[in-house]
Amino acid sequence: FSLKNSVQCRALEIENKPSFTIGKKFQLGDVIEAQQFDRDTLSAIFDVAREMEKIEKNSPGSQILKGYLMATLFYEPSTRTRLSFESAMKRLGGEVLTTENAREFSSAAKGETLEDSIRTVEGYSDIIVMRHFESGSAKRAAATANIPIINAGDGPGQHPTQLREGITLAFCPMQALLDVYTIEREIGKLDGIKVGLVGDLANGRTVRSLAYLLAKYQDVKIYFVSPEVVKMKDDIKEYLTSKGVEWEETSDLMEVASKCDVLYQTRIQRERFGERIDLYEEARGKYIMDRDILGVMQKHAVVMHPLPRLDEITVDVDADPRAAYFRQAKNGLYIRMALLKLLLVGW
Amino acid sequence: FSLKNSVQCRALEIENKPSFTIGKKFQLGDVIEAQQFDRDTLSAIFDVAREMEKIEKNSPGSQILKGYLMATLFYEPSTRTRLSFESAMKRLGGEVLTTENAREFSSAAKGETLEDSIRTVEGYSDIIVMRHFESGSAKRAAATANIPIINAGDGPGQHPTQLREGITLAFCPMQALLDVYTIEREIGKLDGIKVGLVGDLANGRTVRSLAYLLAKYQDVKIYFVSPEVVKMKDDIKEYLTSKGVEWEETSDLMEVASKCDVLYQTRIQRERFGERIDLYEEARGKYIMDRDILGVMQKHAVVMHPLPRLDEITVDVDADPRAAYFRQAKNGLYIRMALLKLLLVGW
Amino acid sequence: FSLKNSVQCRALEIENKPSFTIGKKFQLGDVIEAQQFDRDTLSAIFDVAREMEKIEKNSPGSQILKGYLMATLFYEPSTRTRLSFESAMKRLGGEVLTTENAREFSSAAKGETLEDSIRTVEGYSDIIVMRHFESGSAKRAAATANIPIINAGDGPGQHPTQLREGITLAFCPMQALLDVYTIEREIGKLDGIKVGLVGDLANGRTVRSLAYLLAKYQDVKIYFVSPEVVKMKDDIKEYLTSKGVEWEETSDLMEVASKCDVLYQTRIQRERFGERIDLYEEARGKYIMDRDILGVMQKHAVVMHPLPRLDEITVDVDADPRAAYFRQAKNGLYIRMALLKLLLVGW
Repeated sequence: FSLKNSVQCRALEIENKPSFTIGKKFQLGDVIEAQQFDRDTLSAIFDVAREMEKIEKNSPGSQILKGYLMATLFYEPSTRTRLSFESAMKRLGGEVLTTENAREFSSAAKGETLEDSIRTVEGYSDIIVMRHFESGSAKRAAATANIPIINAGDGPGQHPTQLREGITLAFCPMQALLDVYTIEREIGKLDGIKVGLVGDLANGRTVRSLAYLLAKYQDVKIYFVSPEVVKMKDDIKEYLTSKGVEWEETSDLMEVASKCDVLYQTRIQRERFGERIDLYEEARGKYIMDRDILGVMQKHAVVMHPLPRLDEITVDVDADPRAAYFRQAKNGLYIRMALLKLLLVGW
Repeated sequence: FSLKNSVQCRALEIENKPSFTIGKKFQLGDVIEAQQFDRDTLSAIFDVAREMEKIEKNSPGSQILKGYLMATLFYEPSTRTRLSFESAMKRLGGEVLTTENAREFSSAAKGETLEDSIRTVEGYSDIIVMRHFESGSAKRAAATANIPIINAGDGPGQHPTQLREGITLAFCPMQALLDVYTIEREIGKLDGIKVGLVGDLANGRTVRSLAYLLAKYQDVKIYFVSPEVVKMKDDIKEYLTSKGVEWEETSDLMEVASKCDVLYQTRIQRERFGERIDLYEEARGKYIMDRDILGVMQKHAVVMHPLPRLDEITVDVDADPRAAYFRQAKNGLYIRMALLKLLLVGW
Repeated sequence: FSLKNSVQCRALEIENKPSFTIGKKFQLGDVIEAQQFDRDTLSAIFDVAREMEKIEKNSPGSQILKGYLMATLFYEPSTRTRLSFESAMKRLGGEVLTTENAREFSSAAKGETLEDSIRTVEGYSDIIVMRHFESGSAKRAAATANIPIINAGDGPGQHPTQLREGITLAFCPMQALLDVYTIEREIGKLDGIKVGLVGDLANGRTVRSLAYLLAKYQDVKIYFVSPEVVKMKDDIKEYLTSKGVEWEETSDLMEVASKCDVLYQTRIQRERFGERIDLYEEARGKYIMDRDILGVMQKHAVVMHPLPRLDEITVDVDADPRAAYFRQAKNGLYIRMALLKLLLVGW
């Protein structure tokens, strides 16, 4: 039962202390934030994700994680995220304890600390997938637990706070991992690609994390296309520049569409605009992806989106083979299967 | 992994295009509405249900659906329905992803279309059991999905809308299937039976669907016994007449009880009466099944009820062997096991 | 499939009719209340719990309960209790149907009786773990069901009502069982021990049940240490006296700490004080366990707590090996595994 061994080697991996060692496979301890992954770690995880895809397609009833128990400890409900983790676990023969409303129902309501809750739940399970409404919760849980923690989102979402390196990334590393994996699967490479990030770049933490991870690759060019009110913030721009990543801000979506390998659309989030519904309505209608955009895109290029979408990609785009967003969602399953396997049984 | 093959053969079966073919077992694609089943299909499903009963009783730990994953996607909670499907799946060795409050918690709350939600969830599972508050949702889901959909209820329940053939049946075909199965199990035949439908025949969609399916059998006689305000509507009466089914409306429950093979009692639903509590109170007390009714019933006859019951059947009836309603509920498990097996691995 | 046999032998065990028979292992039918366990039964259950601990640590993927299905029917949510039972079931290879909000979602909302609900759910499962807001519900369920019932709490919690023998114990026997098991595991014996019960002794039903069960052992001495407003009530004191158990009421926590084998701390429950927040604040600050208390405790002694805790045990106590409360919580898993095994497959 290798869990206990792998647990002893657990450590939060950080950028300057890469978790991958040449000649020896790395030990993944917890999955907390995008910053913990370097290029080699990503590549190694993606190799496992490709294995997972084969297992999911060809080996129903896989028993790789038989006997392991995952607790999904969600202090805020998120049905899609929860189902994707639970599916990943079950596709590998593992079992699940589930709670999707821990904030209201659990001992937390009586004033118990997160640390005490984690100490109790780790007695019932082998790995905890946690979503919490407070920034930094996943890190606190990982510092307490003797079993692996996966961060399925911590923080209020609406109010990014400074984390480290002066930049704030997505409140969950999962989306960025599966986005980079999807680009590699769809385009066949990560070095030398051109990526257009479109929509809400100010609040959409997904695109911030993606830009951050893309900076780990060579000769990447990023285009920012967004309404004036939700432009990409300076911290990411400065980070990209410091890493030698070329970037450009433009309002010409057609031009960008014709040049890019990847067009990454995001939802303009109404909840960010408060009372200013006029600004929201103006912003959301500005950069729609439709068949006209497809018309100028290259044959090998793809449209991505973190989902859910509203009408920022029109439905008639779905049937085009370059519409990659549902494949992207499915890739999230393979990434989660890979992480669960790595955290529980290692290589 | 026969799922993918069977999926290619999926089609919504309709009355004039029966899903059963002589000399070749039919392919069941989705289970959406009572209208998709003809007499031969019902008979074939019932044969499998009887197998399932043997498995449930004698073969704990069956592995027939091992490796298969069912998602219960409930936009409206319904604990009993959900548990019965999940039990059916697990009794056959399958696994379950569960969500019972998708309306509030999921991406639907952010404005995602049902079609997009289905495309995501089908990436995580092999079959979706769906309950939704909008009529026609199950059909939309089936048209989108590449995996089988089972309709566990769609529509508001309270406001029947016209579907097809000019008549509206239950918002879920499951109850009618298990009712017909129960009659066959209890009485030993379906042709030539006499059935009394009692209680709320106007709003109780269960009895409408049952009457509809009984019209597929020979020499059936149906008695309608209901308070004046909740009489069976003309569409069903006309349909029965058009199919050559004899029916009669009466207020003499004793007389009906003495003649029938099946007395099917239903709950008078308070929520249908709005402010008119006086009408509700009058209606609910009118046709109670008690030991006096049992006294005039034939020895082989049975009392059925879709449950939950309030006091329309008195508790002292429960111990009589002719009280079939809890066996009826259990038959729902066998019917669900049969449908899951047929949809996932075929014959 | 031994379930049906064991079910035929089901009976609520009571104090004067011990469930353990010399030369023949007892049949455990349901687990409803602490009063049903005598000393021999407890000892036998603890033997199985120790086996369960070995299985949990050394045999992931145990198949002891393979093919069995447990329904967690919670009319009131209690995440921790639910997860601990579900973990116990899954650690033994069993499967789970779960509902944590049955009051709101189920047929109960339509007025169905508990008995009817139980009759339906027992058709879907092999054992029911039930939590209900009405005192006596578990007993009613057990009287109805043909499968074993485990009481995971019934009653409002806030308003203890008289049950039998003139004394009211915890609304769920589980905590007392795991507490006694923990004392035996930690101290190595139950006869001759000294136990300090601290905190809210008036409302904390946990300590009442523990005192009740400890009376089954020889030469036990109990110290009650509590704020004046939440003193241990006379019924328990009289019961202890009648069983020859020595007890003492004192306000000198330091003195008690220096003498006891077990210091059992409890949370002062704010909800019991209503508007009198001043009384609550005074009571909660009065007997805190901190490093000073540890300083006078014996080396072999332990601190216990039913959890969740607020600040009645300071966090700096956690690292001391005598802090037994998280081990105690884990023991709850082993006790639940043992009960599930005994109820479903017997010895």
